[in-house]
Amino acid sequence: VSVQDEVALKELLTDLHHADIAEILDEVDSDEAAYLVLLLDSEQTSEALMELDEDVREKLLENLTPAEIADEVEEMDTDDAVDMIGELDDDIQLAVINQIEDEEHRADIREMLQYDENSAGGLMAKELIKVKETWTVAGCVREMRRQAEEVTRVHSIYVVTKENELIGRLSLKDLLTSDTRTKISEIYIPKVDSVNVNDPAEDVAKLMQKYDLEAIPVVDDKRVLQGRITIDDIVDFIKEEAEKDYQMAAGISQDVEADDSILQLTRARLPWLFLGLLGGVGAAAIMGGFEEVLNDHVILLLFTPLIAAMAGNVGVQSSAIIVQGLANDDVKGSIGNRLIKEMLLAMLNGAALAIVLFFYVWISESAVDYATSISISLFVVIIVAGIIGTFIPLFLHKRGIDPAIATGPFITTSNDIFGILIYLYIAKLILGI
Amino acid sequence: VSVQDEVALKELLTDLHHADIAEILDEVDSDEAAYLVLLLDSEQTSEALMELDEDVREKLLENLTPAEIADEVEEMDTDDAVDMIGELDDDIQLAVINQIEDEEHRADIREMLQYDENSAGGLMAKELIKVKETWTVAGCVREMRRQAEEVTRVHSIYVVTKENELIGRLSLKDLLTSDTRTKISEIYIPKVDSVNVNDPAEDVAKLMQKYDLEAIPVVDDKRVLQGRITIDDIVDFIKEEAEKDYQMAAGISQDVEADDSILQLTRARLPWLFLGLLGGVGAAAIMGGFEEVLNDHVILLLFTPLIAAMAGNVGVQSSAIIVQGLANDDVKGSIGNRLIKEMLLAMLNGAALAIVLFFYVWISESAVDYATSISISLFVVIIVAGIIGTFIPLFLHKRGIDPAIATGPFITTSNDIFGILIYLYIAKLILGI
Repeated sequence: VSVQDEVALKELLTDLHHADIAEILDEVDSDEAAYLVLLLDSEQTSEALMELDEDVREKLLENLTPAEIADEVEEMDTDDAVDMIGELDDDIQLAVINQIEDEEHRADIREMLQYDENSAGGLMAKELIKVKETWTVAGCVREMRRQAEEVTRVHSIYVVTKENELIGRLSLKDLLTSDTRTKISEIYIPKVDSVNVNDPAEDVAKLMQKYDLEAIPVVDDKRVLQGRITIDDIVDFIKEEAEKDYQMAAGISQDVEADDSILQLTRARLPWLFLGLLGGVGAAAIMGGFEEVLNDHVILLLFTPLIAAMAGNVGVQSSAIIVQGLANDDVKGSIGNRLIKEMLLAMLNGAALAIVLFFYVWISESAVDYATSISISLFVVIIVAGIIGTFIPLFLHKRGIDPAIATGPFITTSNDIFGILIYLYIAKLILGI
Repeated sequence: VSVQDEVALKELLTDLHHADIAEILDEVDSDEAAYLVLLLDSEQTSEALMELDEDVREKLLENLTPAEIADEVEEMDTDDAVDMIGELDDDIQLAVINQIEDEEHRADIREMLQYDENSAGGLMAKELIKVKETWTVAGCVREMRRQAEEVTRVHSIYVVTKENELIGRLSLKDLLTSDTRTKISEIYIPKVDSVNVNDPAEDVAKLMQKYDLEAIPVVDDKRVLQGRITIDDIVDFIKEEAEKDYQMAAGISQDVEADDSILQLTRARLPWLFLGLLGGVGAAAIMGGFEEVLNDHVILLLFTPLIAAMAGNVGVQSSAIIVQGLANDDVKGSIGNRLIKEMLLAMLNGAALAIVLFFYVWISESAVDYATSISISLFVVIIVAGIIGTFIPLFLHKRGIDPAIATGPFITTSNDIFGILIYLYIAKLILGI
């Protein structure tokens, strides 16, 4: 690229929004992307970098020196900076941090790297506007002007004691409508929600959603104000959680996207398929055990896929609704009540489906004994599948294990096996074989 | 409840956050809830009402007169008011609107009821802070104080022409740091994202997420400022969409929750189970067609559940990742390329699984011809299932149909049938029956 082109290119890109620059960086090679990052102002590219997918960003950063990465970090809010540095190798992390010129920024980043990624401390940013209770409105506006230089967006104004303990917040409205000589201590609102640096991110997300908060202050055990979390970080978190649960239910582990490499996609999908294969082999083995019975009653075998499929479908329905309810904290009452309700529901569905199946088999095969045996099996299998689908996620949740792993292939496979086993037993009983 | 108790109860509840009051309203009977709503200040209960689930709120409102509902509406932001009124029966809607005392509020609500619920107009609120370009900073602060009375939270300050056309926004920072005699036209930022009242809510959600916006102004075709949408409305929208897709994938239509009634849950679940039953009956009919073959080769029947389950699992995996990619707008490239990629992926997974199955059948049944036929079938079935799982959502999406309906039971059932058909054909070919 000649010098002239460089100038033209820079002009062309300078007016774009950082999200659009991110899209361009995503589409070009990683060395071309690195070239663009160096060409443009760090102020612009630092935000674009944060919009990229983690794997794209990682490749891009491999083409930059620690000093060049530090230039980008310099322009970032502490929460973004920590996220990005956290993705680097340990030795590069150190090199980058040492190259950060702004001492305060460097210290903040060092401190924040110590928090767990999925805690309030890991999500928060250090940039916020705080005022001391002893100030006047006039002094407050003066100080806010200074602080506002560093803060991209003003969310809330937090009121602290001399020791930086959080004691309340200030409404912009009150600040605008009060006499300039009024003391902050007279107009601040002493009620303020806050979270502890060690609170899990999930709890923070729930709290902010429940109370419709746009930002929440983060304090340490002594209630000293440490930072603030904004709703946009939480939006990303909520989306990621929902996507993880959805993929889990479809039998896809790890965070993959449609555009990932075939190898990455295989790693995420193959283990669950193996589980399914094991289940199928298990079902075949069970049916093999009934071989003598089945040789004389091949018609029973024709309906094993139906029984297995229905057991799987019911199990997935039950588990999905429980997993979602647990995620939203609206599963109330005891496990026992929940199981009874699911049983009633399964009986209702099961009866409707069993009656249809009875008439189908009766008419098509004109064999009332087969029709009876197959439809009663379906009824029982649906009830058992519903109970298993409800019980396993509730059980895992009680044990502190993410119930989402119990949806999808796991529940389908186990219900397939149970379903076929129950089916063959009942057939044996009813047909008197 | 005696008068004394009433006072005590009121005192007890007055200090609670509206989200907590909502929880209490959710737990008591609907007539008790209506009693509490009338007891407490509308300022407090109006917000609590909006936190309730739609069905709980509906029942509660049935116990209130139109005038009492109008009192609550009076305190609400226009967007919430419109949501709540939209849920009422047509005749009650009219009665409530006529009881609203604030004329401007009434006119706003009337106007907003005309927008589609899932459009920008349906999501927006009328309350916002706007300043004219001709004002000075001092006049602006004076006007903002007046407007701020009505607006719960200040998000952005929008700059309009005399004709209320949106031309830009004002940063609070600039407002705080400028001389009071400066004209707004000198300091406003002419770059401002906006959406049209008729834009679909989904596009608004994507835009706000892409650019990390906390609020976005809504304009009509003449760029006249009509309202603004805030990120908290979008958070709810995103969550609802994610939950709908998740339930769809599990075979649950309509928006139900774990705590809904058995009848509601049955309505949401039974249709999909019927689809599964049809699939199972179809599979049985196909197998019945091959009955002569199968009578001599019962071993083939033992593996039909395995083949059906694997076809279903692969189909769900492929469709889930495409549906999610489409929702996030990150499925790029042509359908052809996507199908080729999925085919390669399926070949890799299929080969690994087929080899394992081959050895299992060979060793357990010591029949190399069966082992060959079953494992080759599995390989082919996995490839076809992957292609169907990828193609159907892409096809539906191109036709403007929500691809999420193609996940879950729909894909499982169709793949079951295709899988068994392919399996039996290949077995016939290889075993030379």
